[in-house]
Amino acid sequence: MSLGKAGSEAAIGFLVIGAGRMGKLHARHLAGAVDGARLVRVVDADGAAAARAAYGGAESGTDLAAALADPVVQAVVIASPTTLHAEHLMAAARAGKAIFCEKPVAQDLASTAEALAVVADAGVPFQIGFNRRYDPGFAEVARAVHAGELGRVEMFRSQSSDPTPPPEGYVATSGGIYVDSVIHDIDMARFVAGEVTRVTALGRVLVAPYLEKHGDVDTSILTLEFASGAIGVLQNTRRTAYGYDLRVEVHCERGKVVSEAERATNVWRYGEGGIRGDYVYYFLERFRDAYLVEVQAFVSALLAGERPTPGPEDAIESLRVAVAARASLGRGEPVHVAENRE
Amino acid sequence: MSLGKAGSEAAIGFLVIGAGRMGKLHARHLAGAVDGARLVRVVDADGAAAARAAYGGAESGTDLAAALADPVVQAVVIASPTTLHAEHLMAAARAGKAIFCEKPVAQDLASTAEALAVVADAGVPFQIGFNRRYDPGFAEVARAVHAGELGRVEMFRSQSSDPTPPPEGYVATSGGIYVDSVIHDIDMARFVAGEVTRVTALGRVLVAPYLEKHGDVDTSILTLEFASGAIGVLQNTRRTAYGYDLRVEVHCERGKVVSEAERATNVWRYGEGGIRGDYVYYFLERFRDAYLVEVQAFVSALLAGERPTPGPEDAIESLRVAVAARASLGRGEPVHVAENRE
Amino acid sequence: MSLGKAGSEAAIGFLVIGAGRMGKLHARHLAGAVDGARLVRVVDADGAAAARAAYGGAESGTDLAAALADPVVQAVVIASPTTLHAEHLMAAARAGKAIFCEKPVAQDLASTAEALAVVADAGVPFQIGFNRRYDPGFAEVARAVHAGELGRVEMFRSQSSDPTPPPEGYVATSGGIYVDSVIHDIDMARFVAGEVTRVTALGRVLVAPYLEKHGDVDTSILTLEFASGAIGVLQNTRRTAYGYDLRVEVHCERGKVVSEAERATNVWRYGEGGIRGDYVYYFLERFRDAYLVEVQAFVSALLAGERPTPGPEDAIESLRVAVAARASLGRGEPVHVAENRE
Amino acid sequence: MSLGKAGSEAAIGFLVIGAGRMGKLHARHLAGAVDGARLVRVVDADGAAAARAAYGGAESGTDLAAALADPVVQAVVIASPTTLHAEHLMAAARAGKAIFCEKPVAQDLASTAEALAVVADAGVPFQIGFNRRYDPGFAEVARAVHAGELGRVEMFRSQSSDPTPPPEGYVATSGGIYVDSVIHDIDMARFVAGEVTRVTALGRVLVAPYLEKHGDVDTSILTLEFASGAIGVLQNTRRTAYGYDLRVEVHCERGKVVSEAERATNVWRYGEGGIRGDYVYYFLERFRDAYLVEVQAFVSALLAGERPTPGPEDAIESLRVAVAARASLGRGEPVHVAENRE
Repeated sequence: MSLGKAGSEAAIGFLVIGAGRMGKLHARHLAGAVDGARLVRVVDADGAAAARAAYGGAESGTDLAAALADPVVQAVVIASPTTLHAEHLMAAARAGKAIFCEKPVAQDLASTAEALAVVADAGVPFQIGFNRRYDPGFAEVARAVHAGELGRVEMFRSQSSDPTPPPEGYVATSGGIYVDSVIHDIDMARFVAGEVTRVTALGRVLVAPYLEKHGDVDTSILTLEFASGAIGVLQNTRRTAYGYDLRVEVHCERGKVVSEAERATNVWRYGEGGIRGDYVYYFLERFRDAYLVEVQAFVSALLAGERPTPGPEDAIESLRVAVAARASLGRGEPVHVAENRE
Repeated sequence: MSLGKAGSEAAIGFLVIGAGRMGKLHARHLAGAVDGARLVRVVDADGAAAARAAYGGAESGTDLAAALADPVVQAVVIASPTTLHAEHLMAAARAGKAIFCEKPVAQDLASTAEALAVVADAGVPFQIGFNRRYDPGFAEVARAVHAGELGRVEMFRSQSSDPTPPPEGYVATSGGIYVDSVIHDIDMARFVAGEVTRVTALGRVLVAPYLEKHGDVDTSILTLEFASGAIGVLQNTRRTAYGYDLRVEVHCERGKVVSEAERATNVWRYGEGGIRGDYVYYFLERFRDAYLVEVQAFVSALLAGERPTPGPEDAIESLRVAVAARASLGRGEPVHVAENRE
Repeated sequence: MSLGKAGSEAAIGFLVIGAGRMGKLHARHLAGAVDGARLVRVVDADGAAAARAAYGGAESGTDLAAALADPVVQAVVIASPTTLHAEHLMAAARAGKAIFCEKPVAQDLASTAEALAVVADAGVPFQIGFNRRYDPGFAEVARAVHAGELGRVEMFRSQSSDPTPPPEGYVATSGGIYVDSVIHDIDMARFVAGEVTRVTALGRVLVAPYLEKHGDVDTSILTLEFASGAIGVLQNTRRTAYGYDLRVEVHCERGKVVSEAERATNVWRYGEGGIRGDYVYYFLERFRDAYLVEVQAFVSALLAGERPTPGPEDAIESLRVAVAARASLGRGEPVHVAENRE
Repeated sequence: MSLGKAGSEAAIGFLVIGAGRMGKLHARHLAGAVDGARLVRVVDADGAAAARAAYGGAESGTDLAAALADPVVQAVVIASPTTLHAEHLMAAARAGKAIFCEKPVAQDLASTAEALAVVADAGVPFQIGFNRRYDPGFAEVARAVHAGELGRVEMFRSQSSDPTPPPEGYVATSGGIYVDSVIHDIDMARFVAGEVTRVTALGRVLVAPYLEKHGDVDTSILTLEFASGAIGVLQNTRRTAYGYDLRVEVHCERGKVVSEAERATNVWRYGEGGIRGDYVYYFLERFRDAYLVEVQAFVSALLAGERPTPGPEDAIESLRVAVAARASLGRGEPVHVAENRE
């Protein structure tokens, strides 16, 4: 009765490394939702977790080297703990696999550059998980700007408000708000308006006092100067009472284009006290589409023989701006991004 | 290396009947996105189409009887052409499978009742694909009303505007706008506000002149009287210049709850001429979530040993109201729904 | 030092009849906000009330005949109690004054026709206070439709929800919801989509039980058939928990144009439970602009020697549709508007 | 027949100085729309302009000294050219009149302080025309924050985008964007979040090249540090393709409150290309309500024997922050506001 498998001839075989929340989500997408891909293996130090993520009949296990040796595996998704990204990335590159890596490659510029040099040597395709570039709203903003529909960019604005601050244990090794979180806003700024030349950070600890001892802040305004002459501002906070609040707004010569904050549903309640609407809680809900679309874009690029994007240069340049922002916060003055470029 | 398959022990084996647009979508969801389910077979008269829908390693073929005889198949999704629904439904029921059936079971009350009698005799779980009940916005409206948060329902309103009228070939066998399309609004009205006792249809052919010869209309206002004492109105048109436009609005004692129309993205463009936003094109985009959630609900009900919903009584009662609406249009006067109840 | 008064040479002298809430508002506008007009007299049975409304140095008093005899008075605004409208209107017409009359002229067709015949005989300009035609949003909807920007009208919808039902004392002499309140929606329907030929009313008493004994309802759906072939629906309720809720929506060949409900301010509060916004309370706030703009339009028409609008034909035709709606409610079937036309 | 004038016994007699666009608007409001006030005189160097603004029978003329000598004049509105504000203000103060003065008193701190010292010596009530404090939306934001409904302010944001840059002739004497325009945003920031201690300006000439030679910019991001520990950002541009775009957004401990940008009407057009809405053009439309409400507040304060607000301290402190912003732009580094405080 069998006439064949759905699209299997051309489908790229995927290994997912790491079966936590994001790894499991990627595995599920690769098993049933991404055209041109199929999930063949899932690896995690916790074998039971790997098994739970092995959707659609994929193999699962704990041995990464064995999995990378499997010729059916043509591409990997790296969703392991952040501190292992660089190691897993270099192993996958050396095994000749195409790589989709959750951000960041590493928290410092040196380790990031080292790992990406291995990727470059191996000549394998590489995409970094700056998921916002594939959010339908953010992507449409970028598309309209890149197409020149509104003329030159004059002012960029991005806002990201998290519902809760990270726990202290996380903060200690996170690299601070700029490298850990604002980097997403920085990458969108670069994507939309081009390279950033100078940054000035203004930050405060208003929410989570334990941030003080790590030199970190929870409330930040970061101003950007772009090579193009445009200016920009990123507003970030680590606590809202209502959920996750993101917005990108690009003021151009002939108009402005905005990706509005998102609500959980399109429902409005009218009653005593006026109108009420709900709100999206956090990133898993907010970027549900983007997490699928970015991997689809990776697969489509591989199938088309094109470079996936955002690529290694984005992984490193967005980090470079974040590192400059952290330096500006510390020094209390503007910092040139080129300081960190040799 | 293999430690097992993702959730496969408990997963319900599914056969998808029909590999057209909707069948393929259901197959994909069952392969990778529905918890507790796995896709095991896809059947279609066109074997190549079936193969293209056989995601995640499912079997595919053209022989329905053989597929229904497979003991691994515990449940079916019927997504074959509408005129085959009743036949496939009876075959699946007789084979003892749990059934998820795209709407309608049939276009007339007699055939629908006959097919559902077979389901009842077989004692198999049955869910009809009134997908709007599982749209997150519409579902929240219903939840708030059912929970009594706003008090008694006083007035119900639903609007559905399609982007384009159906082609004449489709119209000839569609049963007319009430049975084919307004039935979705009717089902939501029943779901939210309870049984309908009398309807009055007001319809016009303003868009597609070929509807005249089939006694059909493209522009309709249908008023409803509910057993509860509430009243309602359904507005339907078969052409918009901008896309698919749906809204449900329930006016209650202590407020109103509304599910707004949906846009394709959250982007707004500001420029000459003011503000502009895009719009969702049609049902596949609009109900992308609902098509997944309804099948998840079916599977969850099966796993929990509960009756899935909407069930056979919804399939037949919503059709009964639609048939009364068609009669009201013909006669130019109010029609009691009970006329069609023996 | 005086060089003259602001625009006084050309300004039309106004008498306001009735110094209640609406009369006082008109008086204030005429004293300082309407170009080409000046307030010269205010008359009310309650002389103190008249004095309180005599803004900007106008005369005030209780003697209507004396006021109408004043040659400085060129135009009147009739804002007396509804039951006195026809009498005051005929007196003003016989005195040769241009007339702006709050709606309705009278609650029955015969009295309305009689009073308007006096206006016709006198040949004086006449405008009826269907204020919604001058609401900026509603007016823009009408303008766009009249300009043909969206093609032919196919479906009209209007919704008006009052915050509270009228007290029983008011109901007894109000003529019922159609003549008292829905007439505003009817007039907008006629304004936007042309004459109405047949109506079908569906009404319920769900809010204010004392309406039963007056044959009135508080919850109504009225369907309209237009001479053009278009259809329409008016939804009216007499209680909301949140304020005054009006909307007009016109579905046309090439798009739809909507005047949304209004909020009191543009403020949104984000906090626990999501987003919250306030709501406009009732008609004085909602139509603050319209009450000024309609009188400005009246004055501008007088100065330009044009017929003001809406005119006598609108006063009587909108009432005729409302009377037909009341008849339809009573009979439980569609009623031809021409029934009430001899 | 006359029983008296509307509220004239208690009404405060007003002189309007300057009969340009704003003076005429104030005159009209005082003649017919402000409770407790009456317009008695209008003075302008152009006597015909003064006459055109003398609504409701007010006297008009060109002799300011004579007008200030009139004992019927109890209060003045100063709406003369900016360069005359200080002179007129001192004259009015010395004449013992209550003063409402359009912003700014003067463009430099010394002249402002000198003029306000005369006001202080005279002991007359003084209000500065920072109209945004009386915009219904902005006022509600401030009220909610001051009432503590959302807890402590953490981040303030204001955006003001003008439709067109000022002409070069205006720029030369305007004092630059911070003193001329951003001062409104600064005043709202101070009103909502308290005193500002340090500012950092980032500005560009992207729209109007002639600004370069005046040391001015058209595109600015100004970051603020508040005495409270909060931080803020003001975004200003001098050109949009669509109209006037203002927004205030206050992120607090327990939520955020936003006053959204305003549209000209509540109308949405649905058609090819999606949804379209119009936009408010500029400040006269945008602040139509505020221009009336601020003068009403002034009059109400006078009648109640209370200090009007914003007062002299706001006139000078908001200017002090604007001057610091201009200095920061010039120096390219953060500037302490206290630098300009002796």
